[in-house]
Amino acid sequence: MPKIKKKNTTFHVYYRKQLRREREKKKRQSTMSLEAIRYNNGTLSILNQLLLPTISEFEEIKSVEEGWDAIKKMKVRGAPAIAIVGCLSLVVELQKCNTFEKVKQIAAFIIDKLEYLKTARPTAVNMAEAAGRLTNIVNALLKDKNTTADSMKLRIIQEAEDMLKKDVIDNKNIGKYGAEHICKHFLEPSSTARILTHCNTGSLATAGYGTALGVIRALNESSRLDHVYCTETRPYNQGSRLTSYELVYEKIPATLITDSMVSFAMKQKKITAVVVGADRVVANGDTANKIGTYQLAIAAKYHNIPFYVAAPSTSCDLSLTRGDGIVIEERPHTEVTFFKDQQIAALGINAWNPAFDITPADLITGGIITEKGVFKPSELKQKLTVKCEV
Amino acid sequence: MPKIKKKNTTFHVYYRKQLRREREKKKRQSTMSLEAIRYNNGTLSILNQLLLPTISEFEEIKSVEEGWDAIKKMKVRGAPAIAIVGCLSLVVELQKCNTFEKVKQIAAFIIDKLEYLKTARPTAVNMAEAAGRLTNIVNALLKDKNTTADSMKLRIIQEAEDMLKKDVIDNKNIGKYGAEHICKHFLEPSSTARILTHCNTGSLATAGYGTALGVIRALNESSRLDHVYCTETRPYNQGSRLTSYELVYEKIPATLITDSMVSFAMKQKKITAVVVGADRVVANGDTANKIGTYQLAIAAKYHNIPFYVAAPSTSCDLSLTRGDGIVIEERPHTEVTFFKDQQIAALGINAWNPAFDITPADLITGGIITEKGVFKPSELKQKLTVKCEV
Repeated sequence: MPKIKKKNTTFHVYYRKQLRREREKKKRQSTMSLEAIRYNNGTLSILNQLLLPTISEFEEIKSVEEGWDAIKKMKVRGAPAIAIVGCLSLVVELQKCNTFEKVKQIAAFIIDKLEYLKTARPTAVNMAEAAGRLTNIVNALLKDKNTTADSMKLRIIQEAEDMLKKDVIDNKNIGKYGAEHICKHFLEPSSTARILTHCNTGSLATAGYGTALGVIRALNESSRLDHVYCTETRPYNQGSRLTSYELVYEKIPATLITDSMVSFAMKQKKITAVVVGADRVVANGDTANKIGTYQLAIAAKYHNIPFYVAAPSTSCDLSLTRGDGIVIEERPHTEVTFFKDQQIAALGINAWNPAFDITPADLITGGIITEKGVFKPSELKQKLTVKCEV
Repeated sequence: MPKIKKKNTTFHVYYRKQLRREREKKKRQSTMSLEAIRYNNGTLSILNQLLLPTISEFEEIKSVEEGWDAIKKMKVRGAPAIAIVGCLSLVVELQKCNTFEKVKQIAAFIIDKLEYLKTARPTAVNMAEAAGRLTNIVNALLKDKNTTADSMKLRIIQEAEDMLKKDVIDNKNIGKYGAEHICKHFLEPSSTARILTHCNTGSLATAGYGTALGVIRALNESSRLDHVYCTETRPYNQGSRLTSYELVYEKIPATLITDSMVSFAMKQKKITAVVVGADRVVANGDTANKIGTYQLAIAAKYHNIPFYVAAPSTSCDLSLTRGDGIVIEERPHTEVTFFKDQQIAALGINAWNPAFDITPADLITGGIITEKGVFKPSELKQKLTVKCEV
């Protein structure tokens, strides 16, 4: 029946073309990831996240003071993004000033500014980690007699600029490892995942691509994502304002829920896995992350759903043995009682506003996804230490 | 040493007077419970809860249509309050119209209006229970040859008016039984309780005093309350808008938290018990209540904290055997994505907004507190049936 055969062939060609077009479109979309930190040769600007989702406005950061202020006021937030913006705000100042004659002078200047930047938000470890790393470089350079004020300046600028590039590479690896782990352990070969996530861990929290949202992006790019459920993440609404914004921007199929709906969603919506980010993971795997994460982990355990933490190794603080050593930042009560200028609670009510909570390692049942691989909480310390030594 | 003795006596008298004054003040406060439904001889007005906490404004309900609308739009909410306002809106119409010549005419009118009122919000059983009860009375009266249109009207008016008084009495008993149960089983003789509650179950949800908030009031009146933690209860903020309003109004020591902070509060704040209300409790003890209740119960179980449901027996629907038979109302997405007129989520994001969830009986570890006593979920059906038969 040549006629039918011909028809089939025509259709075959047609569908192949269509498929190629759609794949190309998807590939284009995957590179359309939102840009929230714009840096070019000493000029830094950030997307002011306080104005999202209604207004997309970039704001120039012209000094360390302005960098500190942007972090404190949460114009930029998310552990990796805080460190990058903090360090790049130092680069901006270093690029501008040519007044350092002595090496000791610039060294003191850099160390002083880094110490100051660490105080903007104490819970996220990445700024402290970056400050420590840059301080170590400064101290090592001080011991080298060939170091000049200029060479130290160039070296620190280079280090900070590299952080921006490295973070995107790390996030893509986190995405890849996380997506592979979920597909391998919790999905049938042809099925797709329903992921529940919390807070914002995407392009708006990192240099780009994202950690937990990076895993979601990677699943989506490999056509293994069915749907994302994102919590609104009270009281600061990072989920409804920022994650939703990214998901809509990149056309990833998603549904917004309130934090109170998580357990009912787990019961009703066949969630494959929960993936969240981290502000700090300590040696035993205990994890500090956005308030509500602990509750998500308890609910996931109850429903027998794997719970993953996605974080670059720079968020892992192996110097602390257990989570109860982490300082939890408490933020102003007005974040709970007001929405922007609108009063949402009775006048005179007292409020509690811890910004983070600690999820014990035993609730992290899926694993900790890093740019070096997916590890059980109990093997994290050894794996990260070994990898560093290699 | 007469001088010292005299001084001691003076102090003794002073402190006794002070104590008496404080006790009297407390007693006055306990009767100062907020009034949200004002009814007097055919005139009904309600505190418009949509305007709280910023504006306290009463609105007259002049017809069943307006009653239905107030329930649908959540100007009044809370399962017992819905039933009372619904039935009293019927009374308002009955008081106004004198046009019924035949018994069958008024019977059809009443049954028709009651059926209509049931459709305003389907999950809460109290309106359906009240409608069923009044319909049964109408049907019984129809069989009695002595019934006139006027006598039927007066009987239905009397029944609806009695609901208002009975609900306050029932709530005070719920408060008493609940407080006694918590004190007996989970408090040392001289210690005080820290109670966590969800949504609004107080004077704004009932005819007065409240169910779960009634238990809190009773603990406070007997000086056995240390502190209340109330969730803001997204997406409709009944906790931050209404419960906070009542707690501030009555000077009960309280702290507002977001729904995401519940588990961390349980870990950090030594919560004695969780007490919530119910929109419907079915025969096996499964409970439909405000979205987020299920999650609270899971978190309470994980932290080994007793979990109580406080509800009048009219909220118990023994005709349903299991919770999965309960219809869950889904409300507009804009409740999640907007706060009043303010957009709080990215445009274009999809949202899910179930108004209730189902807490399985095995998570109700404290008990179900009714006006007839505190029962284990497994004994609820038998206890309520026996009590009715006595």
